[in-house]
Amino acid sequence: MTYRVGIIGGTGYTGSELSRLLVRHPDVELAALTSRTNAGTKVSDVHTFLRGYTDIEFTEKISDTKDLDFVMVATPRGVAMNEVPALREQGIKCIDLSGDYRLKDVALYEKWYGTAHTDADGLADAVFGLPELFRDSIKGADLVANPGCYATSAILAIAPLMKSGLVHSDVFVDGKSGTSGAGMKPSDRLHHPTCGESVIPYSVGNHRHTPEIDMAVDMFAGSKTDVMFVPHLIPIVRGIISSCYFRLKTDATQADVDAVYEAQYGKERFVDYVPEPSIRAVVGSNHAQVGSKVIGDRVVAFGVLDNLVKGASGQAIQNMNLMLGLDEAAGLDFPGFGV
Amino acid sequence: MTYRVGIIGGTGYTGSELSRLLVRHPDVELAALTSRTNAGTKVSDVHTFLRGYTDIEFTEKISDTKDLDFVMVATPRGVAMNEVPALREQGIKCIDLSGDYRLKDVALYEKWYGTAHTDADGLADAVFGLPELFRDSIKGADLVANPGCYATSAILAIAPLMKSGLVHSDVFVDGKSGTSGAGMKPSDRLHHPTCGESVIPYSVGNHRHTPEIDMAVDMFAGSKTDVMFVPHLIPIVRGIISSCYFRLKTDATQADVDAVYEAQYGKERFVDYVPEPSIRAVVGSNHAQVGSKVIGDRVVAFGVLDNLVKGASGQAIQNMNLMLGLDEAAGLDFPGFGV
Amino acid sequence: MTYRVGIIGGTGYTGSELSRLLVRHPDVELAALTSRTNAGTKVSDVHTFLRGYTDIEFTEKISDTKDLDFVMVATPRGVAMNEVPALREQGIKCIDLSGDYRLKDVALYEKWYGTAHTDADGLADAVFGLPELFRDSIKGADLVANPGCYATSAILAIAPLMKSGLVHSDVFVDGKSGTSGAGMKPSDRLHHPTCGESVIPYSVGNHRHTPEIDMAVDMFAGSKTDVMFVPHLIPIVRGIISSCYFRLKTDATQADVDAVYEAQYGKERFVDYVPEPSIRAVVGSNHAQVGSKVIGDRVVAFGVLDNLVKGASGQAIQNMNLMLGLDEAAGLDFPGFGV
Amino acid sequence: MTYRVGIIGGTGYTGSELSRLLVRHPDVELAALTSRTNAGTKVSDVHTFLRGYTDIEFTEKISDTKDLDFVMVATPRGVAMNEVPALREQGIKCIDLSGDYRLKDVALYEKWYGTAHTDADGLADAVFGLPELFRDSIKGADLVANPGCYATSAILAIAPLMKSGLVHSDVFVDGKSGTSGAGMKPSDRLHHPTCGESVIPYSVGNHRHTPEIDMAVDMFAGSKTDVMFVPHLIPIVRGIISSCYFRLKTDATQADVDAVYEAQYGKERFVDYVPEPSIRAVVGSNHAQVGSKVIGDRVVAFGVLDNLVKGASGQAIQNMNLMLGLDEAAGLDFPGFGV
Repeated sequence: MTYRVGIIGGTGYTGSELSRLLVRHPDVELAALTSRTNAGTKVSDVHTFLRGYTDIEFTEKISDTKDLDFVMVATPRGVAMNEVPALREQGIKCIDLSGDYRLKDVALYEKWYGTAHTDADGLADAVFGLPELFRDSIKGADLVANPGCYATSAILAIAPLMKSGLVHSDVFVDGKSGTSGAGMKPSDRLHHPTCGESVIPYSVGNHRHTPEIDMAVDMFAGSKTDVMFVPHLIPIVRGIISSCYFRLKTDATQADVDAVYEAQYGKERFVDYVPEPSIRAVVGSNHAQVGSKVIGDRVVAFGVLDNLVKGASGQAIQNMNLMLGLDEAAGLDFPGFGV
Repeated sequence: MTYRVGIIGGTGYTGSELSRLLVRHPDVELAALTSRTNAGTKVSDVHTFLRGYTDIEFTEKISDTKDLDFVMVATPRGVAMNEVPALREQGIKCIDLSGDYRLKDVALYEKWYGTAHTDADGLADAVFGLPELFRDSIKGADLVANPGCYATSAILAIAPLMKSGLVHSDVFVDGKSGTSGAGMKPSDRLHHPTCGESVIPYSVGNHRHTPEIDMAVDMFAGSKTDVMFVPHLIPIVRGIISSCYFRLKTDATQADVDAVYEAQYGKERFVDYVPEPSIRAVVGSNHAQVGSKVIGDRVVAFGVLDNLVKGASGQAIQNMNLMLGLDEAAGLDFPGFGV
Repeated sequence: MTYRVGIIGGTGYTGSELSRLLVRHPDVELAALTSRTNAGTKVSDVHTFLRGYTDIEFTEKISDTKDLDFVMVATPRGVAMNEVPALREQGIKCIDLSGDYRLKDVALYEKWYGTAHTDADGLADAVFGLPELFRDSIKGADLVANPGCYATSAILAIAPLMKSGLVHSDVFVDGKSGTSGAGMKPSDRLHHPTCGESVIPYSVGNHRHTPEIDMAVDMFAGSKTDVMFVPHLIPIVRGIISSCYFRLKTDATQADVDAVYEAQYGKERFVDYVPEPSIRAVVGSNHAQVGSKVIGDRVVAFGVLDNLVKGASGQAIQNMNLMLGLDEAAGLDFPGFGV
Repeated sequence: MTYRVGIIGGTGYTGSELSRLLVRHPDVELAALTSRTNAGTKVSDVHTFLRGYTDIEFTEKISDTKDLDFVMVATPRGVAMNEVPALREQGIKCIDLSGDYRLKDVALYEKWYGTAHTDADGLADAVFGLPELFRDSIKGADLVANPGCYATSAILAIAPLMKSGLVHSDVFVDGKSGTSGAGMKPSDRLHHPTCGESVIPYSVGNHRHTPEIDMAVDMFAGSKTDVMFVPHLIPIVRGIISSCYFRLKTDATQADVDAVYEAQYGKERFVDYVPEPSIRAVVGSNHAQVGSKVIGDRVVAFGVLDNLVKGASGQAIQNMNLMLGLDEAAGLDFPGFGV
């Protein structure tokens, strides 16, 4: 069977990346991309990298396309909570790549996002889509909240160690992201003369991925975590490394820490625990790398990924595969760049 | 005597760079910077790099400041032609860093800039401010049109060779510029994810520096030049290299070409003819480097500079020094980065 | 049938990229990678991006692996001419990605490469592997010389126009390449502080891709071309754009030039003629983009590709597919990045 | 009086940067640069950015030049301890920019640097050259150990807060440096294709600036600090930002923390406490910026500077000025880039 998949928000970076990945997915037909500004235009005329891979045109609304089996929402936040309820009523499974469904608690959402949430039912039903930690729940979900890019990189590094009980609950996360993570809208900070030869801390202490990291780690570890998250903009296009700093509770050794991560990720297809995690090794792919180093009574752990793939669109497809009962790696089975 | 200098357009890149240079100029007091959005704010609160160097505040209009001796216009084009006439009436010498006064011919201006020119007198009086080629005229001018960044780099490489008669008149200029040359306003092209790992040709065949290069080379060489100019955006912040391709008329040798450039620039303070021109050697400074290589019956010449200094604000100060009878190198007497 | 493919030179960038592409090729088993320094080590321990994609170890010599059907040579030049004769004697088809077999003429080789050529027979038999121009010859070849990265980008832009008779024979090629094109060996020029915020012309007038461009264009166009090629190092990792400058012979229009390229590339899978060729659209993929603009009596044409894919390893696989009678796009059927 | 200053190690990045700064110093004559490989060559032929600023030639040994008043050692570590004793015997004051004299304890030196120290007397006499913290000692010194680049950025952010007693002693320092900090020698890590689109943690837990930060903070604060330092290589040429993470001991507020830094740096010429520290604001200059943000019971502090100026050669000149009784800002009195 070939599933017909539609994307709400087809011009932005995550929508564009979903297209790039879905056109080569063996079990999927890319059936719809919406775009208010480009409706009626051939997708491959806007995204010339899709020439020869799809002949469809942008449509204005997702309802313009019939018989969809699955919908991804790849818009700025605030759109998904308006679109998803109607889709679910029609029995269409959905993944939201924006932040609308990530925080389980309406009050928490409203505190961090500053607006009311209009789909409390969806929020209650949505499953946090980090397959390596919550695979079984994802398989049974009809609505998945796809994690943020920083959040994925940090959670992968933090969750196993927090669950192990080896570390104190107060973690410092120094996030370093390429610029594509901030989306396609030009801004002062993303202007090349501003960021091209600089490293810029931003949203210090109030970035929206903070409660998401706390929530996901707590759900997985069953204990209270307290993350302080400081993101930095780095002049690369793709790639994130989150350097996570812990205090060890006990006199744990490197071998103890290695054992924790190897137990967690040893059999995973898309997360590798390696001596020297590298952005270049994962760029372009759905693979993430995690590493760690114990120094005295402290430890640093690194979570590394391509923000647009494992940090967004690739992970969404991994979630979709689980939700549809497909091979988890379908359409994602290719390595990172290396160079 | 200390000259009181004002800048119209104090927040943009060329205004900011003028400030950076003028605060260390031995004969100048930075007396005014205008900014509609920042009027009333301390300059050093917006430009923190000026902390300790100036205590003045932004003003709304240049006329808010009294007793100015000299005014630089560092705005987008279209402003200078409205501001300059009143200043000249008061006997204040002016340099325009925008394109308003560069093309001598009103018709040519209107063809390339697409709007009417409202100061035909100023246009007639304005001297093209490339000191190495037009030093004497600049000394006597009360209005100087500061050349464009690409234009300066290309003209320095082209003009001597064209005057020598060694080359045909049809030159190809492949310009490669850092992103700060495009100004401080965010745009799709200057968005880091777009340009940070790319090389982007733009304004192919219709960039406004094209007629400026033709005009300046013709004025200097006394013959008709025909430049085809293709600019490319490069992911560096500062620096331009223009690679200029000529066909030799005669069987000229490398020695012949070297002799031309050495005769032209051998005694210049700010233009060096070197075997391997380098952006890093000039970045941060008012120095330019020129180089060339003869290959068979053709020759390539390179013009290299920092687009914000010799390509804009530094050259403006060099012109100001000439207009005020100061040492031409006053306030500019420091080398480039090297590294 | 699954073909067993070996790579001589498995640690360098083109060898590494061949591995990245071959592990997902549907008709190929990556059977051998040689490396003197890494022999005996698991490939995926050195290239961690291949974890989960291959379990083989590096071997010292290609003859250490039996029953190979095909061999790629991805070493620095000078190795292939020693390895290829023995392989061909065993009936193993070969592609050389170094420069050893590109120039048909021994004297020309020795002039540009500075050493003697030890396999004149191979040189005579080798077919220049640019499929869009020489597809039929490649199909029947047992030895293919894979083109250089700059050369591919320039030839794609130049050859159709030269064949059309619309342009004069003297073309200027201003090449701009990312740093991965220079290989994995550290050097002063590739040192980040040197090149990271600069644009560096090099090998001006004596780069070895010059005679290769001339030769290939002449073979295709049936006329004498005279390329002046000036490469520039650009601070991006992957990507080349060659800006090619021509003088039109006649009063050809943009429509005439468009017609030439559309006739040539309209049905090609991997070369697209587009209004605005973009490095980001092709990075990571085997796709190239070509564009052009007529300005008065001159024209600029752009050839854009990923130097490691269509400029090296991807094109090698495209050639291999043709030589083995496979679908030309097998293992290469995925789009570029876009972002 | 004009002081004659010599530099041992004139080709490397810190030697080159010393030259760039000293040629414009009002009280100094750049009298000697040594270089084994370039001895006998004009300095400005190697460093073309010095054309017009100095006519001296490289010499082989510092003793080749007579009547020096002051010597800077800008070599890799291990050279200074052999050169400095003889210079001091002649009454020549010295600054060492390598690590030879930074750690006061021979045993500590040998533990971190892995070799014996041959000048125990010098080590005992050397003063740690961070003027904002140890100004008085520097004034009376005849040998100053110039701090490391990372160390300066971290110490400026850590020392005042540690002295205030507001924070616990265990600090995490996430250092992010441009590539010029690693010196001019090409290496795999500094190879552009490796680092140009990546962020690379290195020397995790064993970087030599670790004990230097601990020592300097302890000397200043009078208490035991315990730094965990993780440096990351960032693809920019110049600039460091050290993000320093603390746990607050008490319920200190942002106002408390602001007061600490303002008391410390309010009157300093070269260190500014600002709301948003920026690499671009300081690049090219001897200025550093410090900022902080309290989040709950933790605080992050940022130390930002140009690694080659305030992180090396500029700070050396600031120290020299103090040692010679000159204006501390002589030759350094110019702002950073801004853009």
